[in-house]
Amino acid sequence: MELTHLDKEGKAKMVDITQKASTERIAVATGIITMAPEAMQKIKENSLNKGDALAVARIAGILAAKQTDQLIPLCHSLPLSSVSVDFEVLENNAIKITATAKTFYQTGVEMEALTAVSLAALTIYDMVKAVDKRMSIGEIHLVHKKGGKSGTFDWDKSE
Amino acid sequence: MELTHLDKEGKAKMVDITQKASTERIAVATGIITMAPEAMQKIKENSLNKGDALAVARIAGILAAKQTDQLIPLCHSLPLSSVSVDFEVLENNAIKITATAKTFYQTGVEMEALTAVSLAALTIYDMVKAVDKRMSIGEIHLVHKKGGKSGTFDWDKSE
Amino acid sequence: MELTHLDKEGKAKMVDITQKASTERIAVATGIITMAPEAMQKIKENSLNKGDALAVARIAGILAAKQTDQLIPLCHSLPLSSVSVDFEVLENNAIKITATAKTFYQTGVEMEALTAVSLAALTIYDMVKAVDKRMSIGEIHLVHKKGGKSGTFDWDKSE
Amino acid sequence: MELTHLDKEGKAKMVDITQKASTERIAVATGIITMAPEAMQKIKENSLNKGDALAVARIAGILAAKQTDQLIPLCHSLPLSSVSVDFEVLENNAIKITATAKTFYQTGVEMEALTAVSLAALTIYDMVKAVDKRMSIGEIHLVHKKGGKSGTFDWDKSE
Amino acid sequence: MELTHLDKEGKAKMVDITQKASTERIAVATGIITMAPEAMQKIKENSLNKGDALAVARIAGILAAKQTDQLIPLCHSLPLSSVSVDFEVLENNAIKITATAKTFYQTGVEMEALTAVSLAALTIYDMVKAVDKRMSIGEIHLVHKKGGKSGTFDWDKSE
Amino acid sequence: MELTHLDKEGKAKMVDITQKASTERIAVATGIITMAPEAMQKIKENSLNKGDALAVARIAGILAAKQTDQLIPLCHSLPLSSVSVDFEVLENNAIKITATAKTFYQTGVEMEALTAVSLAALTIYDMVKAVDKRMSIGEIHLVHKKGGKSGTFDWDKSE
Repeated sequence: MELTHLDKEGKAKMVDITQKASTERIAVATGIITMAPEAMQKIKENSLNKGDALAVARIAGILAAKQTDQLIPLCHSLPLSSVSVDFEVLENNAIKITATAKTFYQTGVEMEALTAVSLAALTIYDMVKAVDKRMSIGEIHLVHKKGGKSGTFDWDKSE
Repeated sequence: MELTHLDKEGKAKMVDITQKASTERIAVATGIITMAPEAMQKIKENSLNKGDALAVARIAGILAAKQTDQLIPLCHSLPLSSVSVDFEVLENNAIKITATAKTFYQTGVEMEALTAVSLAALTIYDMVKAVDKRMSIGEIHLVHKKGGKSGTFDWDKSE
Repeated sequence: MELTHLDKEGKAKMVDITQKASTERIAVATGIITMAPEAMQKIKENSLNKGDALAVARIAGILAAKQTDQLIPLCHSLPLSSVSVDFEVLENNAIKITATAKTFYQTGVEMEALTAVSLAALTIYDMVKAVDKRMSIGEIHLVHKKGGKSGTFDWDKSE
Repeated sequence: MELTHLDKEGKAKMVDITQKASTERIAVATGIITMAPEAMQKIKENSLNKGDALAVARIAGILAAKQTDQLIPLCHSLPLSSVSVDFEVLENNAIKITATAKTFYQTGVEMEALTAVSLAALTIYDMVKAVDKRMSIGEIHLVHKKGGKSGTFDWDKSE
Repeated sequence: MELTHLDKEGKAKMVDITQKASTERIAVATGIITMAPEAMQKIKENSLNKGDALAVARIAGILAAKQTDQLIPLCHSLPLSSVSVDFEVLENNAIKITATAKTFYQTGVEMEALTAVSLAALTIYDMVKAVDKRMSIGEIHLVHKKGGKSGTFDWDKSE
Repeated sequence: MELTHLDKEGKAKMVDITQKASTERIAVATGIITMAPEAMQKIKENSLNKGDALAVARIAGILAAKQTDQLIPLCHSLPLSSVSVDFEVLENNAIKITATAKTFYQTGVEMEALTAVSLAALTIYDMVKAVDKRMSIGEIHLVHKKGGKSGTFDWDKSE
């Protein structure tokens, strides 16, 4: 296989999807932001008190998903059918971010889901950074993908 | 310390920086994208042949840094004095991304550097995803920060 | 009926429109900006003299309609078939703004029409604000809607 | 007084602010969205249950304030020192939106405050529109303004 | 024929494309940037040494094509199937820029191709301007167009 | 002299302007769009009848100037003090576009003026393209520049 976004001379181009069929496509991506215990505590208290912290991150993720084609130079503009961003507080002072994107179109929505995860994570970072400068964002990857010629993919299944 | 971006009721707001002094500020952030050997090989070949792959990612990172205030809801708009994004191929089929942002302003540029790293990583992901669906982006964190009231920070030094 | 943009736990999400049928949809919205007599006089003189005042507001409204999905976090991106923005000078030193938006898609275009009206009004405000600080923008509402499952709606007809 | 954004021939231009002094400037604007009792009830329940509804609108308002120069063609780009958006539930099934914007710059921030109010209102509208098509947004106006050559303005004081 | 983007009174509107058929459409546009010999030499050396100069311009052109509907007020948003931007070094210290855009939609992509050429040219200008202030961008025009009611057009064929 | 936007290895970066002094800066750029006589006639009639054609192009140019840092990857974000765009109908079925940009900042505004000219020209093209497919945009260059270390430049004076 070749790098599809680069022509024979290695120059960047937007892949021609004219001949690809529109199908229902879904992608799920996750990522984790790890922080100091006192930082995590702040986020938890905010949530308990009906605060906005995670809502801000969720909105940032959703808005970023809709701007993916502007942020990643060779991505196609596509009509997202839905986007959702969810948070799960893990045991080790970390928050797991899961984003799900859907479309009925000629290309997949992996980048939309991954971009939503990344911006939601950065937005949490932004709100907590005065308390903790040693936060780290990681394990951003695709979890599930369905639709399109390459078929279904699940991170947890060996291929 | 409190979460500065949330008011007493936990609601989101942009921090008032009216009283903060403008100083020269710099932030350096890094992140790593790990991929399959054959994917890494494609990137290396592209670079050897004067291809655009890393240039696309670099530009995506620089442009994203300039849009940080639009992407992260509570970030201030600020005049970046410079942004650079560099890549280092690591031994284990990974690429390390380093972004440096500078400003002379009333707030720091950590989020600008971190956003540049994140979008550069996502752009590499986008170009390689047809070859490898098990890529992972991680270890995104601040490496160095200088300027402003909270002083100098270095990831490698214990506080 | 429930608030469609919020999940069972009240968290924000983009509604999944995968199963909705594409139909021709139209929405008309209006709003009114009221100003001091001398401010109104300036706008009228500008129009008589082939000035740009209302053209600037019209363009602002049209451009905003095309950015609705970026401005309103849970709105879907959709392909507008047409947008128009019209102005009518009313008797009481007021200008009525009417925006019409059309699409052939899976969701309606109410928000596009309302956003066009709002930004056209704000743009008029901006041009006149040096003359009058007591302007007021109001009565922004949907006037007509056609297409989609909820059928035709007319503000002037009781339901 | 003349319309400052239009030249002698009535053509649009961005006012030249080169000679204006930077001063601390603040603007407060308000607006009201009125809805059916059952729609208002949904919003209240969402708030009681730690839902995102008003947080989404708040973020939309803050982000819009930072994009004012892109949305209103003749507005200057300016560095906002802070923006906040607050909601008050009124007795008559209405929500009052108040936005406060600050800068230290050569022009005022009225348009930023008014744009934040407008987009926050439109975002509430968007979330409730499946329940109520007769909502109306109105009474959008400046409440307070300070800084700059034209001095302090208060809506509630006669001039 | 009339100016399609202006109504009977000469006011701007987005043309209603509801009744137009979706067909495969392609547009090719070109433009030329002419510079001083020493400036041209710098670009050539950069290319020989695997530098980013033309890659930056190519990405700027591709990204601009995807933003055409935001930049040109009366353009429709449309789903680009592909965009590519190529450079050819001409004999007289000039670079010819060629952009090709494709879609399957109800309107053509001439403006997308022309916008890509223009922004690629401006980006080259930006990188070289410290060396040469007498650069000139010109001969921006449509070269080829196919699809849609008006049929095929070729610049090199008399009509 | 070297290409300032490229580092020693030829890689793109945003120039570091930390050490540059803020001074008043102005740039004037021009360009010409040439069309068929009947196309020119349409524009003239529209202007005579208080139509929006040139106003749309003017607004597109002004808005584009304010987005220059987003469109041209290595341009700095800067606070424009003013922008204006003017049109002159030439004898040979052509329109000359002149844009003037000003700032008080650490870098010049040549790119802002050139971008305004380019987008104003493309917007005229868009409105006339149904009538004339042989339009051409050209002679886009800097006319005047003042402020900053490189001093004053005038296109009409030999250096």
